[in-house]
Amino acid sequence: MNIDMIRAAAQRLQGHVIETPLLFSPGIDAIAGRRVLIKAEALQVTGSFKARGGWSALSALTPEARKAGIIAFSSGNHAQGVARAAAAYGAPAVIIMPSDAPAAKIDGTRALGAEVVLYDRGSESREQIGDALARERGLTLIKPYDEPEVIAGQGTTGLEIARQAAALGITDGEVLVCCGGGGLTSGIALALEAEAPAMTVRPVEPAGFDDVARSLVSGRIERNDQSTGSICDAVLTPAPGDLTFPIMHRLCGPGLTVTDAEARRAVRAAARHLNLVVEPGGAIALAAALFHGDEIEGDHVIVTASGGNIDTDMFVDILKEEK
Amino acid sequence: MNIDMIRAAAQRLQGHVIETPLLFSPGIDAIAGRRVLIKAEALQVTGSFKARGGWSALSALTPEARKAGIIAFSSGNHAQGVARAAAAYGAPAVIIMPSDAPAAKIDGTRALGAEVVLYDRGSESREQIGDALARERGLTLIKPYDEPEVIAGQGTTGLEIARQAAALGITDGEVLVCCGGGGLTSGIALALEAEAPAMTVRPVEPAGFDDVARSLVSGRIERNDQSTGSICDAVLTPAPGDLTFPIMHRLCGPGLTVTDAEARRAVRAAARHLNLVVEPGGAIALAAALFHGDEIEGDHVIVTASGGNIDTDMFVDILKEEK
Repeated sequence: MNIDMIRAAAQRLQGHVIETPLLFSPGIDAIAGRRVLIKAEALQVTGSFKARGGWSALSALTPEARKAGIIAFSSGNHAQGVARAAAAYGAPAVIIMPSDAPAAKIDGTRALGAEVVLYDRGSESREQIGDALARERGLTLIKPYDEPEVIAGQGTTGLEIARQAAALGITDGEVLVCCGGGGLTSGIALALEAEAPAMTVRPVEPAGFDDVARSLVSGRIERNDQSTGSICDAVLTPAPGDLTFPIMHRLCGPGLTVTDAEARRAVRAAARHLNLVVEPGGAIALAAALFHGDEIEGDHVIVTASGGNIDTDMFVDILKEEK
Repeated sequence: MNIDMIRAAAQRLQGHVIETPLLFSPGIDAIAGRRVLIKAEALQVTGSFKARGGWSALSALTPEARKAGIIAFSSGNHAQGVARAAAAYGAPAVIIMPSDAPAAKIDGTRALGAEVVLYDRGSESREQIGDALARERGLTLIKPYDEPEVIAGQGTTGLEIARQAAALGITDGEVLVCCGGGGLTSGIALALEAEAPAMTVRPVEPAGFDDVARSLVSGRIERNDQSTGSICDAVLTPAPGDLTFPIMHRLCGPGLTVTDAEARRAVRAAARHLNLVVEPGGAIALAAALFHGDEIEGDHVIVTASGGNIDTDMFVDILKEEK
């Protein structure tokens, strides 16, 4: 896992994913008390950065493996990213999703032509289900984060951050990344190590699901006690990955955590000040910038707005709060 | 008014406005029945492309003129674009806005430090009020569209469209532009004449406010009978401008019109499939692509999503429609 793999992925992704903008807004800066640059991956094809990892992984397979088909387990964003790449390549796709995933994500995955298999997040292991189905049908498993070509794809976000920030004269500072299993976080950290070494990546997690923050402190992989209980469905992974954790341990600053209430306020701020629809799990880095400014260094901060696949009912509820 | 002015404006805007992305989404393509590329100016600083024209105009003034201050009349997006540029330059700004403008736009303009003067859209002339105040206080009037440096600023959108579309292998086809007075439409048309001459710009207007479409047919400036009565507040101008009309007449294809109901459906589709908050007047070009496909040529179409400054109440109402 190295920068060359990320650069190679960027070549393969060219024209197939969107170069998302680095947004800024006087209204956001006023709340945060410093300049905030927002890498708007909610605008990515399929509504999240996962389209990058999905395309990277599919494009790295042999034609024979693609023809046999792929399988993925995902709370929804990886599902859509992989399903979209599979559809473009004409590869059969089976996606294992938690039964409590947002309807927008389940529907979106089916609309992209994938076969969706639902499982219970509290009592079943998606890894076991995935492994069994992969063996049974001869499918290639595309893991959501602990997979080199997926990390390489997510890392292309970091190449763009470095280039877009430099165009604004910014080459240092903290980069807050919404963190589940660590695919995006470790990929961006690797990209910035090469392209903007004065920047420091810091993972952001929901309170109660701070496995990465605790792992960074203890120096070994720590797990979450629970697997449900936050609206930030996109980042509720049990533990950092065997591949992603060593990268984060080597390169990342301390983790940050935000509450669900702060995530909701960040969703509202993104709609109001950026005209961006962000899902709660994709808004936690922005929430940290807006509401945990005393834990951040510097006169500017970069955050990822990682995904925007939120159910309309929840989005409307959040928009109507604190009017 | 020529391409060199647009290129010069692009230089002055560098780092001060956002290079907005050209978005695409399988869900949008499925509704439209062809590939749709969306130039997402709703993500621009201040929530619309007007930040470009505002910055272009302010940056072209002498330091003395900026110090004396500027005045603008606007339904809200030009107001914020000009107010933001004025604030950055430390120039006093007076903005004349219709009293029925969305609260989000009036509040946004005040938050940017401008003095807001309200007028009645049905009975008063904003041009007369603007001219009088400009004389009285020695302010420079920054007109919303019939002003060369404003057209040049909006035209930078066209330079980006040409470059971003070419990166996707697209150099021809129709470019649908949300059209009020024609500043964005004529600016993009001039930019594409130079950078992507096989593309054809077509103005899109709300039904009942198709002054530009009728003017293009008759060959002379036609006016609208009414000044209110559509939710597309951003594009309810009385007639094309003396500067913008000859450019549109020389370069544009036939106009398109969409209903308010179609604009609402396009707002909903943009939120659902692009994670983009778009206001009704900024959604009419997308509405034309989605619901008037039989009036469009080619296997792909480019549209502007020009602005996103919509009141939360209306946005929530639209999101809850047709669930």
